[in-house]
Amino acid sequence: MKTRKTKTETENIQALMQGMGQHARQAAAALAVATGETKTTALHAMATAIRAQKDGILAANAKDVAAAKENGISSAFLDRLILDEARIDAMAQGVESIAALSDPVGDIITDWRRPNGLHISRVRVPLGVIGIIYESRPNVTADAGALCLKAGNAVILRGGSESFYSSRAIHACLTTGLREAGLPETAIQLIPTTDRAAVGALLKDMTDYVDVIVPRGGKSLIERVQTEARVPVLAHLEGLCHTYIDGAAELEMAKDITVNAKMRRTGICGATETLLIDRAVLASHLPPIADALIAAGCELRGDDASRAIDDRIGAASDDDWMTEYLDSIISIKVVEGVEGAIQHIDQYGSHHTDCIVTDSADHAERFLNAVDSAIVMHNTSTQFADGGEFGMGAEIGISTGRLHSPGPVGAEQLTTFKYVVRGSGQTRP
Amino acid sequence: MKTRKTKTETENIQALMQGMGQHARQAAAALAVATGETKTTALHAMATAIRAQKDGILAANAKDVAAAKENGISSAFLDRLILDEARIDAMAQGVESIAALSDPVGDIITDWRRPNGLHISRVRVPLGVIGIIYESRPNVTADAGALCLKAGNAVILRGGSESFYSSRAIHACLTTGLREAGLPETAIQLIPTTDRAAVGALLKDMTDYVDVIVPRGGKSLIERVQTEARVPVLAHLEGLCHTYIDGAAELEMAKDITVNAKMRRTGICGATETLLIDRAVLASHLPPIADALIAAGCELRGDDASRAIDDRIGAASDDDWMTEYLDSIISIKVVEGVEGAIQHIDQYGSHHTDCIVTDSADHAERFLNAVDSAIVMHNTSTQFADGGEFGMGAEIGISTGRLHSPGPVGAEQLTTFKYVVRGSGQTRP
Repeated sequence: MKTRKTKTETENIQALMQGMGQHARQAAAALAVATGETKTTALHAMATAIRAQKDGILAANAKDVAAAKENGISSAFLDRLILDEARIDAMAQGVESIAALSDPVGDIITDWRRPNGLHISRVRVPLGVIGIIYESRPNVTADAGALCLKAGNAVILRGGSESFYSSRAIHACLTTGLREAGLPETAIQLIPTTDRAAVGALLKDMTDYVDVIVPRGGKSLIERVQTEARVPVLAHLEGLCHTYIDGAAELEMAKDITVNAKMRRTGICGATETLLIDRAVLASHLPPIADALIAAGCELRGDDASRAIDDRIGAASDDDWMTEYLDSIISIKVVEGVEGAIQHIDQYGSHHTDCIVTDSADHAERFLNAVDSAIVMHNTSTQFADGGEFGMGAEIGISTGRLHSPGPVGAEQLTTFKYVVRGSGQTRP
Repeated sequence: MKTRKTKTETENIQALMQGMGQHARQAAAALAVATGETKTTALHAMATAIRAQKDGILAANAKDVAAAKENGISSAFLDRLILDEARIDAMAQGVESIAALSDPVGDIITDWRRPNGLHISRVRVPLGVIGIIYESRPNVTADAGALCLKAGNAVILRGGSESFYSSRAIHACLTTGLREAGLPETAIQLIPTTDRAAVGALLKDMTDYVDVIVPRGGKSLIERVQTEARVPVLAHLEGLCHTYIDGAAELEMAKDITVNAKMRRTGICGATETLLIDRAVLASHLPPIADALIAAGCELRGDDASRAIDDRIGAASDDDWMTEYLDSIISIKVVEGVEGAIQHIDQYGSHHTDCIVTDSADHAERFLNAVDSAIVMHNTSTQFADGGEFGMGAEIGISTGRLHSPGPVGAEQLTTFKYVVRGSGQTRP
């Protein structure tokens, strides 16, 4: 239900957001020169606070869950929203694992000396102030806040409205950690309203304060961000991931990879949504793969060619090629070899993660070169598209944008660099 | 003079730009898999064509220059617009030097193996389609076109309208080079109209075709881009560069660096615009530095404290701290030590290049850490803020944005990367 806001309400949101922006900018200046030790102290204190405040967090989460159930949300959505003791402990552990990462700030990425004696180094520095807009997953509040702090950034968090109370309770623990380490509490701020006008202000009216926006979420959020944002965006689009079974694929491997890529966890962005299969192995490979998917509880929706081979496959429409199910459903399309797969992915993919299963080195190289996604894979599961699995520690998501840092975004990816030039009086001829 | 456009004119521009976008996207796919050798062949053929078409380029430039003079443009502007044989030869040499650079595409930036046997590599790939909007400097047409090609990108160029005919003549030479190497001629397109609506279309309506916009120019362009752009921007803001003379600065070095930083060439973005001087050395250092600047033909505009010491200094207003003169004028502000300098730069700088002159290692480190610019310097001239001087080969400018790649943007900075994951059937537990 939309209601027209009064002028005063709008002004209040504006004033709130401008104040948050000013505080974030001040905090960022302090964080940029904070030692790694101080940040680590803060992160450990946050983890301790999360464990100590477990009951409070669970109570807040129960409030969110009750409201969400009343609004009839889906079970997949509920699964992401709901917390229990194990999940809260995992959240605290996540913050501790971020504390254990090496501090990226101040790293000398590369350095060299010029013939005139000037010494030039490229030094890693924080991005500054980051605005993160995310879905109703309470754990993201802790992950994103902790990662931003590790990288020396101030952050303004805006979680999904269905997780409002959970996020607020978790955020209070982060604030405790900052305070105990002597860092500004405004280094991690949570927008204290579910009013969507606050998102508009974050996107449009805070160019003086916000250096980058990280949107995590589905198409509608990304479209809003693309239309409204006046600050740079590090986009975390949906994962419309493909697994392509090539004519030269070994059947057992193709079966194992497909089932894992789709069904291990259906709700993550690296889950495969569309299975592409080479017409050359349609008759030999599709039925056993379909058997395995059905046995794992997956619904199949395919094109006419696939349905002609296996009548357990329902009919797919064009929409299916564009749908991130995040559920136990897979779409199946028959393609003409690796070129057909590349073409389908070019047309429908989201530049997230795409995989070829083949024993042909030539087909693999052609696919890996031509598919224009943040992550391209050969003979493995798209579910490995994950910062932890890449060995990067925690991440806030997989960037599908081309600028800055495609792929998993961890602490290092939340930094930038500057050039430091040291001379002894050189002037330019 | 603004005239209201008819619906048909607007539709024509829209159709023109959509067509250019589609062509660019197709060309980008071809360029992404073009060999380094083919691109080098094209670049050499471009340089040859530029030299062969010298007379035609000069005639086109004469047409632009005549129109510009009629419109009463400034001498600094005219200097950037005008071409002669030497400048055309330098342009051809610039393209040849880009040909000689190593090809960044396909470089393995880093790679590692995971405990489960997965091999992960980060591989450099082109950005895709780049839109470059630049001022009336004909040589940028050649530099930008050649650099984009080197990095495997298709590009849509939009030069300043005062250089329209010059840019068109140079662009024809680039097209010749592409054709001779068997590359699509649409790999480098020049918008064939000076209609500003074309810029609007490039910024707003081509999200399907354009991956990144690179604006080069002054405040009004950047503001337009920031307001209108719906695609990622690699901003090349003005260079409001500062040289700070610290209390611990050696006088002779301070004098030499200041004169070079301001007066070597006043029209480049790395030229110092504001001299900050520590009150501690105001009386001892400012008069001799002022002598040297005046002897070099520079106009001085200062705050009250500086004018009290040296009456040859005119009065500066607050506007002077925010003005990129690109001319023989410098603003002078007295500050309280290194903290005062940091504060002034934070308030008025453009995050381009800022320098401290000091013999104090502590003051230098404090300045280099705290100043939040793409390039920070110690004891040298801000005029070294240049890709060539950094040893990076040619550049299209200095990025002042925080994302992707601050500082000089050469061929390597016009690429991005993807992760290539190679497995042998691994599934995620």
